[in-house]
Amino acid sequence: MLPPPALIAEISPHQLEVAETLLQVGRFLVIFIVARAIAELMVRLQLPTILGELVAGVLIGVSGLHLIVPPETQAEISGALLSLLGSLAAISPDDVREIYNETFPSLQSVSQIGLFALLFLTGLESELDELVAVGVQATTVAVAGVVLPFALGTAGLVFLFHVPLIPAVFAGAAMTATSIGITASVFGELQWLKRKEGQIVIGAAVLDDILGIVILAVVVAIVGGGSFTLGPVIKLGLAAVVFVVVALVLSRKAAPAFDWVVDQLKAPGDVAVASFVVLTLCCFAAQAIGLEAALGAFAAGLILSASKHTHDIDAAVKPLVALFATVFFVLIGTGMDLSVLNPFDPANREGLIVAAFLLVVAMLGKVAAGWSYLSSEPTNRLVVGLGMMPRGEVGLIFLGLGSQAGILSPALEAAILLMVIGTTFLAPVLLRVVIPSTPTTAAEAV
Amino acid sequence: MLPPPALIAEISPHQLEVAETLLQVGRFLVIFIVARAIAELMVRLQLPTILGELVAGVLIGVSGLHLIVPPETQAEISGALLSLLGSLAAISPDDVREIYNETFPSLQSVSQIGLFALLFLTGLESELDELVAVGVQATTVAVAGVVLPFALGTAGLVFLFHVPLIPAVFAGAAMTATSIGITASVFGELQWLKRKEGQIVIGAAVLDDILGIVILAVVVAIVGGGSFTLGPVIKLGLAAVVFVVVALVLSRKAAPAFDWVVDQLKAPGDVAVASFVVLTLCCFAAQAIGLEAALGAFAAGLILSASKHTHDIDAAVKPLVALFATVFFVLIGTGMDLSVLNPFDPANREGLIVAAFLLVVAMLGKVAAGWSYLSSEPTNRLVVGLGMMPRGEVGLIFLGLGSQAGILSPALEAAILLMVIGTTFLAPVLLRVVIPSTPTTAAEAV
Repeated sequence: MLPPPALIAEISPHQLEVAETLLQVGRFLVIFIVARAIAELMVRLQLPTILGELVAGVLIGVSGLHLIVPPETQAEISGALLSLLGSLAAISPDDVREIYNETFPSLQSVSQIGLFALLFLTGLESELDELVAVGVQATTVAVAGVVLPFALGTAGLVFLFHVPLIPAVFAGAAMTATSIGITASVFGELQWLKRKEGQIVIGAAVLDDILGIVILAVVVAIVGGGSFTLGPVIKLGLAAVVFVVVALVLSRKAAPAFDWVVDQLKAPGDVAVASFVVLTLCCFAAQAIGLEAALGAFAAGLILSASKHTHDIDAAVKPLVALFATVFFVLIGTGMDLSVLNPFDPANREGLIVAAFLLVVAMLGKVAAGWSYLSSEPTNRLVVGLGMMPRGEVGLIFLGLGSQAGILSPALEAAILLMVIGTTFLAPVLLRVVIPSTPTTAAEAV
Repeated sequence: MLPPPALIAEISPHQLEVAETLLQVGRFLVIFIVARAIAELMVRLQLPTILGELVAGVLIGVSGLHLIVPPETQAEISGALLSLLGSLAAISPDDVREIYNETFPSLQSVSQIGLFALLFLTGLESELDELVAVGVQATTVAVAGVVLPFALGTAGLVFLFHVPLIPAVFAGAAMTATSIGITASVFGELQWLKRKEGQIVIGAAVLDDILGIVILAVVVAIVGGGSFTLGPVIKLGLAAVVFVVVALVLSRKAAPAFDWVVDQLKAPGDVAVASFVVLTLCCFAAQAIGLEAALGAFAAGLILSASKHTHDIDAAVKPLVALFATVFFVLIGTGMDLSVLNPFDPANREGLIVAAFLLVVAMLGKVAAGWSYLSSEPTNRLVVGLGMMPRGEVGLIFLGLGSQAGILSPALEAAILLMVIGTTFLAPVLLRVVIPSTPTTAAEAV
């Protein structure tokens, strides 16, 4: 990469490259070692590994050792790390800090590839017919899981805590999110992805993501002030409908075409590259019409789930998930500032009380959504409700947006962060408690 | 990522994220589609696919459609692309250009992961004992392949073309490089990696990389002017020796420890993550003592080649190679400016004549190195010589360094570029011509 002008004078291109490589490789090394160590601990405690990845992030992030520090948190990077790398690359710790922040987006890009790969795999392992069969239930769960936390959260903040309307609406909106990544990861590991509960939760999480984008557009327009028009929201809504319909049609029709193309390919790595083309194409299309690229990744997996090459696709994508989705979840953990949790700091108390309220509403709202649908056969409604609970990265995005716009008081900001942290960490733990270790029914697929 | 201050005023964080995602995903899409299409053509022409990836890079890079434009080339990005993405993300083409250049390092980081994965795989598929058995031959080939092109190139430039000594030395140094990535890729695809010729070439290419780093240190010191001291060079030489010795010892001893650790791991993705830890650790260690991180990647593969999990490691790393090493080779192609090849432009003629000389010396010097070693059994010396020929990314790094230091005349710069392009493209073609399609001996491994 081109060094920024300020650095050219002092650092040679060679030193710059050395420092960049040490940083990039070193960050991977720290992430993998710590995440793996704690994931192993989690497995032995019979807890989902994703919890270990989040905890690992907290340990090495802005609440812990300050080794992995996302630049947008504005937190300090460990001085020992800067000195060590500075002496290895023969540059000053200040220069290391500069290069650290400049190269961080590369790590975030790699983590995005991990998220896309995970959602692609989730789509690939979903059964389209089962997903369509639970369509009505998933829609009910998604809508109830959006309306309940939003209404209860906003009303409670306004009437109980006398928060002004706009920040209250914003906090309510942040409570509607569902982190499809965390849910998919837990259900996949517990092998509940193909059960009815799993399919309802995944379907509802996808719809929730779509609803979330529409809500975000509305909230941003309101926060932007005055200029709120219905046009863009209707456009987004239409885009979402078109997207779902096209994805459903393609899932039925496109797999044979894909298989035909793959059969023509002769160069090595054919299945991996062909799948990645479908994946990036769907991500691009989703983002281009205003939806999330992550939704495109899920749709791509769904489209290829009818391919005769699913086994090979699966084998090609799994290493990407093992490596880079780990990075994604660790990065979520690194950005969480747990110092707001300290009850001995008087500045935290107001936030903690609001947070306790938001957390309860956030949990109850989603869990109640598990009882919102009708089903002829018995399903574990608690599993469905808990599956919708983690806010994860989606909640953090809402929070980042609100704090960037300057509409949240420090107490409310801390409260939303605690709500996000609480739901994100409790969901895998509670799911693990509720779901028996060995599945009791034979509903699992091969 | 944090938007730079200049952009914050005009672009909302949401628009920025949309533009970033479209660019990142879109670039992957273009790279994979074009690279795959031309790789398929190459397979049908019985040529190595890497050639297709380089050609794909030329087609979509600064010599072609300007879709993938490394910022350091300073070339213009396709206006149509900027307009399209600008209209999709609702920002101006100028802002797209800015974001394009800012997000490009992420693509380069991913391509680095691809290179590391490829060299790791090369090490993994190497037989340590065979590599040690050909150690003397590999050393002879490496030294001859460095001395011959350097001496002939520098002397020719000074005495035939009256080039001043410092630029001539620099051009000579650029001719000593061997692109281990290209060589490994071609030999792997033709299944000659485990034959004696393959092992000699890989061993010599690794040693050549080490020699190259020492040469680079010397040349940079000379170019830096006056302050040349022997200290750093001796330090690098010692580091290289330590590195080779440690890698050899670990290759014999460390695999059982690795296997023991992997056997203790229970969380999913264990082999992929454990291998990646070894890989990043070796890359970090190599870079930290002043060598190339890529050498560490090869050493990591060599260390794990005695593991009982090689089959699983192989399966986990291959998708990374198929996806990201492709990006690496395509990016090499995108940075090549072929306009210097046009003989009708009078400004090019001087460069073309010098280039013809450098190209001939660059080819003959490495091919002659194939006849430099003693061997009791018959080996195909032409294959060894041609295997050492491609300069690839290593040559481009030398060139970039020279043009940054301002010591090369435009004609000499063009000539070095042509030498790099010529050897890089001709090596896979000539190897394919020389190596029979179906191996005639039974020397291949499982």
